[in-house]
Amino acid sequence: MKKKIAIIGATGYTGSELIRLLSRHPDVEISICTSESRTGEMLSDVHPFLQGIADQKLMSINQVNDYEPDLVFLALPHGVSMDFVKRFADSSFKIIDLSGDFRLSSAEVYENWYNMKHIYPEGIGKAVFGCPELFGSKIKDASLIANPGCFPMSAILGLAPLLSKNTVHADLLIVDSKTGVTGAGITAKAVNLYSNVNDNFKAYGLKLHRHTIEMQEILDRVSGKKTLIQFTPHLLPVDRGILSTIYARPFRAIDDNSLKGIYEEFYSDAPFVRIRKQAPAIKDVRGTNYCDIYATYDERTGMIIVISVIDNLIKGASGVAVQNMNLMFGFGETTGLDYVPLNP
Amino acid sequence: MKKKIAIIGATGYTGSELIRLLSRHPDVEISICTSESRTGEMLSDVHPFLQGIADQKLMSINQVNDYEPDLVFLALPHGVSMDFVKRFADSSFKIIDLSGDFRLSSAEVYENWYNMKHIYPEGIGKAVFGCPELFGSKIKDASLIANPGCFPMSAILGLAPLLSKNTVHADLLIVDSKTGVTGAGITAKAVNLYSNVNDNFKAYGLKLHRHTIEMQEILDRVSGKKTLIQFTPHLLPVDRGILSTIYARPFRAIDDNSLKGIYEEFYSDAPFVRIRKQAPAIKDVRGTNYCDIYATYDERTGMIIVISVIDNLIKGASGVAVQNMNLMFGFGETTGLDYVPLNP
Amino acid sequence: MKKKIAIIGATGYTGSELIRLLSRHPDVEISICTSESRTGEMLSDVHPFLQGIADQKLMSINQVNDYEPDLVFLALPHGVSMDFVKRFADSSFKIIDLSGDFRLSSAEVYENWYNMKHIYPEGIGKAVFGCPELFGSKIKDASLIANPGCFPMSAILGLAPLLSKNTVHADLLIVDSKTGVTGAGITAKAVNLYSNVNDNFKAYGLKLHRHTIEMQEILDRVSGKKTLIQFTPHLLPVDRGILSTIYARPFRAIDDNSLKGIYEEFYSDAPFVRIRKQAPAIKDVRGTNYCDIYATYDERTGMIIVISVIDNLIKGASGVAVQNMNLMFGFGETTGLDYVPLNP
Amino acid sequence: MKKKIAIIGATGYTGSELIRLLSRHPDVEISICTSESRTGEMLSDVHPFLQGIADQKLMSINQVNDYEPDLVFLALPHGVSMDFVKRFADSSFKIIDLSGDFRLSSAEVYENWYNMKHIYPEGIGKAVFGCPELFGSKIKDASLIANPGCFPMSAILGLAPLLSKNTVHADLLIVDSKTGVTGAGITAKAVNLYSNVNDNFKAYGLKLHRHTIEMQEILDRVSGKKTLIQFTPHLLPVDRGILSTIYARPFRAIDDNSLKGIYEEFYSDAPFVRIRKQAPAIKDVRGTNYCDIYATYDERTGMIIVISVIDNLIKGASGVAVQNMNLMFGFGETTGLDYVPLNP
Repeated sequence: MKKKIAIIGATGYTGSELIRLLSRHPDVEISICTSESRTGEMLSDVHPFLQGIADQKLMSINQVNDYEPDLVFLALPHGVSMDFVKRFADSSFKIIDLSGDFRLSSAEVYENWYNMKHIYPEGIGKAVFGCPELFGSKIKDASLIANPGCFPMSAILGLAPLLSKNTVHADLLIVDSKTGVTGAGITAKAVNLYSNVNDNFKAYGLKLHRHTIEMQEILDRVSGKKTLIQFTPHLLPVDRGILSTIYARPFRAIDDNSLKGIYEEFYSDAPFVRIRKQAPAIKDVRGTNYCDIYATYDERTGMIIVISVIDNLIKGASGVAVQNMNLMFGFGETTGLDYVPLNP
Repeated sequence: MKKKIAIIGATGYTGSELIRLLSRHPDVEISICTSESRTGEMLSDVHPFLQGIADQKLMSINQVNDYEPDLVFLALPHGVSMDFVKRFADSSFKIIDLSGDFRLSSAEVYENWYNMKHIYPEGIGKAVFGCPELFGSKIKDASLIANPGCFPMSAILGLAPLLSKNTVHADLLIVDSKTGVTGAGITAKAVNLYSNVNDNFKAYGLKLHRHTIEMQEILDRVSGKKTLIQFTPHLLPVDRGILSTIYARPFRAIDDNSLKGIYEEFYSDAPFVRIRKQAPAIKDVRGTNYCDIYATYDERTGMIIVISVIDNLIKGASGVAVQNMNLMFGFGETTGLDYVPLNP
Repeated sequence: MKKKIAIIGATGYTGSELIRLLSRHPDVEISICTSESRTGEMLSDVHPFLQGIADQKLMSINQVNDYEPDLVFLALPHGVSMDFVKRFADSSFKIIDLSGDFRLSSAEVYENWYNMKHIYPEGIGKAVFGCPELFGSKIKDASLIANPGCFPMSAILGLAPLLSKNTVHADLLIVDSKTGVTGAGITAKAVNLYSNVNDNFKAYGLKLHRHTIEMQEILDRVSGKKTLIQFTPHLLPVDRGILSTIYARPFRAIDDNSLKGIYEEFYSDAPFVRIRKQAPAIKDVRGTNYCDIYATYDERTGMIIVISVIDNLIKGASGVAVQNMNLMFGFGETTGLDYVPLNP
Repeated sequence: MKKKIAIIGATGYTGSELIRLLSRHPDVEISICTSESRTGEMLSDVHPFLQGIADQKLMSINQVNDYEPDLVFLALPHGVSMDFVKRFADSSFKIIDLSGDFRLSSAEVYENWYNMKHIYPEGIGKAVFGCPELFGSKIKDASLIANPGCFPMSAILGLAPLLSKNTVHADLLIVDSKTGVTGAGITAKAVNLYSNVNDNFKAYGLKLHRHTIEMQEILDRVSGKKTLIQFTPHLLPVDRGILSTIYARPFRAIDDNSLKGIYEEFYSDAPFVRIRKQAPAIKDVRGTNYCDIYATYDERTGMIIVISVIDNLIKGASGVAVQNMNLMFGFGETTGLDYVPLNP
């Protein structure tokens, strides 16, 4: 029998991407989609591209329990999400939370970086960080998943092999990331207007972006050391995709073959990580759950450069959420996610 | 047992789109992919986004028979394709030809519009025009399919209901179409350079585009009359998609509901045509085999305006080719084609 | 002595484009820029690209008279603009109104198409339609200019030679226009979001767009007949530019040279209209006040196709406004407007 | 009397940008434009956007001397350019060479990084590196200018103040640059095709890009130390613009105001450098000769981050070439270059 799924916050980009993926997943059915601002409207009126695919009515989150879901995806903003995780604490269904509310190590750290009180610190203790490549076995038994941030996903997958092998200095890692616009959400803001993004490019959130601490804390666990990351996000004139260019200093010279070997071994069981022979482009993974990685050593400077690309809405959000769901339900890890990149 | 497929010309846009679709089709296997210019190379070296998906070696078309395919897709330029259709005339496999070589009614018409001698007029008689919404039953029994052109697909589906019902004058139909760049193929030409296309827009091929006659001849058959079409293609700064804005004069006033009814009835058995309540956008169908259509009547002017959108590489080329294949093999019509639009 | 200029509504696209053009105009100085929503802020904080160019404080419209301007540009939304035109009725300065409030022939027509009461019908009588190619001599003596709409500018310049010569039927003209996003203004709305526009294309405002009546009324005057226009605007994924594809039925066959001659003669004194040998692209005029036009006759169908391109923010708004100002002050018509297209 | 100018290689991007700028420069006239591949054609047939602006015939480079130019711009590929610099060695005109042939310190260094023999090492000794902000007084007296590379311009202007003040360690500087497509030239290559660039992003030329050594050698001179730069260029889906994100380690903590002060002082006489309060975007300088710079110190990591943006075709090529020309002829430094950014 198919598992019953609830999608909370179905009209945003990650919510509608969950609908896109789950409406073609063979082992689940979408029982309820909610939106507080558009309750009662047809999903296919909000998103006409879903006509004939998801012609259901948007409900309120208060009706979720009536549908007896097996799993609930929370595709809500941070700060809002923790409220519902708390409220659903005693429910029988599993929760995958796509917000940043349960990704960090403690309420104190959260409050420092998010400038907001955490109202449910107990949830932090229960939550498993939903990076299947690192924490797959814990995810299988979890009832609450803190689904990773998009930038952290690209940086963590790019750096984990080097840090777990103690190949590079952890005390200064530079992550220069470039993201598509959908990372900023569906709300109409000046920063997302076509004419502000098209034929344009800029950095934002210098020094202070919340994903910095998320990367550091997870990589601390991978490396067993304290990492320090200089993270600079930039806004690309593209819809989807993150490319992170990562600079790290190795303890000693290393040839590119050995470097490739480290990555291939680390990800030998990871169906969605592809180790590349050359620098990947974001369109190489568009529409898929892949993370493509290329690493190279520069003899002239003594630095390692790692390039990692993902589709921010899939491997950086809704796709990895479905991957986590697959693990939690004991489905095949790639079930419903075996897409070929849409290129061009 | 899975049907064995050959893809001839696998490195172009329509060829690689066939690979994208067929590598996830449950009832076929890709036995051989060919490219004369890159024989011997790995497909995933030519198109790195296919790494882990289609890691096979590119062969020569001369090796096709060795693989005993059940069906051969010819994704070749016009003029080249007819050569192989002729050469394969006695083969046991079915052929779906994506070029324009067998779409017109006679060698004379072909030579007029393509400025090129047709070397295999017998093939024209045998070929079935691969528009499943119009000629589904003939396609089931065909051994040679002339897969439709991208612009004709959008115009024919947009106009067929009106012309079949004799709702509009056939003697002057205006089809103002706008296409993404992939319609021009993968070869590096000035016209396709990023800086010539980005933030730009222009008309091309005025008065003489070969797809004009293809639209007319098919719509002649639908309407039982001689149609005359003014067709103007334009180049959009997008990768994929065609939107056709069509102007037609009805014999009498008609309300929008009746108009919608005509389309819904005509396409009641067509799983990939969606009749819309409002003007569709090309991103509503990106990555899918859908054709979305909206029609409205303007009381002030007495004109009908029809808007039709497709993904030119899918419903306008490789997707409808797979749909034709499904019919020819007796598979479900939507098998391997049930994608949700990639939006945004 | 330089003429003193006021720009009302300086933070929108047409307002900041006026600043861009006038800050380099040799014969004027910008005395005051206003914005009601951002009064007191520095213009270069609102638009950082103006740092070092226009580092002045934004004022309120109520302060305009204190600066004793010679001419006031109103870059305000329709409905708002008429209020100020009325209020400024007895002022000594000239006014160029970029809104639609004074372009139509009467308050009745305005109310029909804009669904809004006109509060200053007297202004309509006084206003001169600011198309220098048609009404240059009236503009010289005007005190109130109704600056043309962007779509009408492209359609009127494309059709005026044919209609003034009675070359084509006036009773059904099809204007299929495609515009860049800046035409929709600077306000953050869903329709202008990058992810809704990028890699996308759609029609909007079918049958009802207000620019339809503006085109018709001006072309009525040019042709001396009642024109009927089917106008369909579409939204392009570009910042700037309008391309109109226009279909008209001539009374008799005409060769392309004669057609070109008609246009060249009609525009022999128009420094910003370029008659082209081939279909123009919008990037051919980006950043300039040019209107490029190409016309051709199709013997097969008996139709004339005209392609006309402008930069919607310049020839379609702020550039033609400056051209009008030049005429009103007796400056050279091209003063401050002799830009070379930014291409690529 | 106006100075007479020759533009060699007028049909490429930097050549046509020179035409764009110089055709509106008040103190020069373009006497001859050359193209070997399109000799005899009209410039406005090659680039229709120049119709009515530069309707002259393309000549051969062999005819240059007939026109007795005062200054010759060489807009040719590296390797080709040195040939003509050598050939013109005894001519009376000044030369500004936009290629990389005379930017490096010696033939040996050139041959190492360009994998090509240098045929005119004497020219290297004579050439002045055309960065007016650093070498203005030498430029005034030069007869041969090696016009800077686009990436070096953005990196050098971003780093020079810090290195000249000995504020940061020179032994490892990271320059992560992102460029628009026009940097790759006008030739039709797969890498420049719309569908390979649009909605895409990738790094290229890792570790080996020739601009690395150019940055290092100039910054060696500025700092009096040996610099080591890790330079990674990336390809943006935009036409114009370079943004460089630069990471440097200061010797001690520094507040942002002091940092801003260092830059403002260093560039107090530089009319085209704007020190910004916040991270600039490439569209803030589009169509102009500006370089906008923002620098900030991160207390958490102890790093300085510098963001620098230019229009690669102007400040990164043809604009700075005109600025150099102005200095060489004793014109005002900003003459013919006082454009306002085209934004949006």
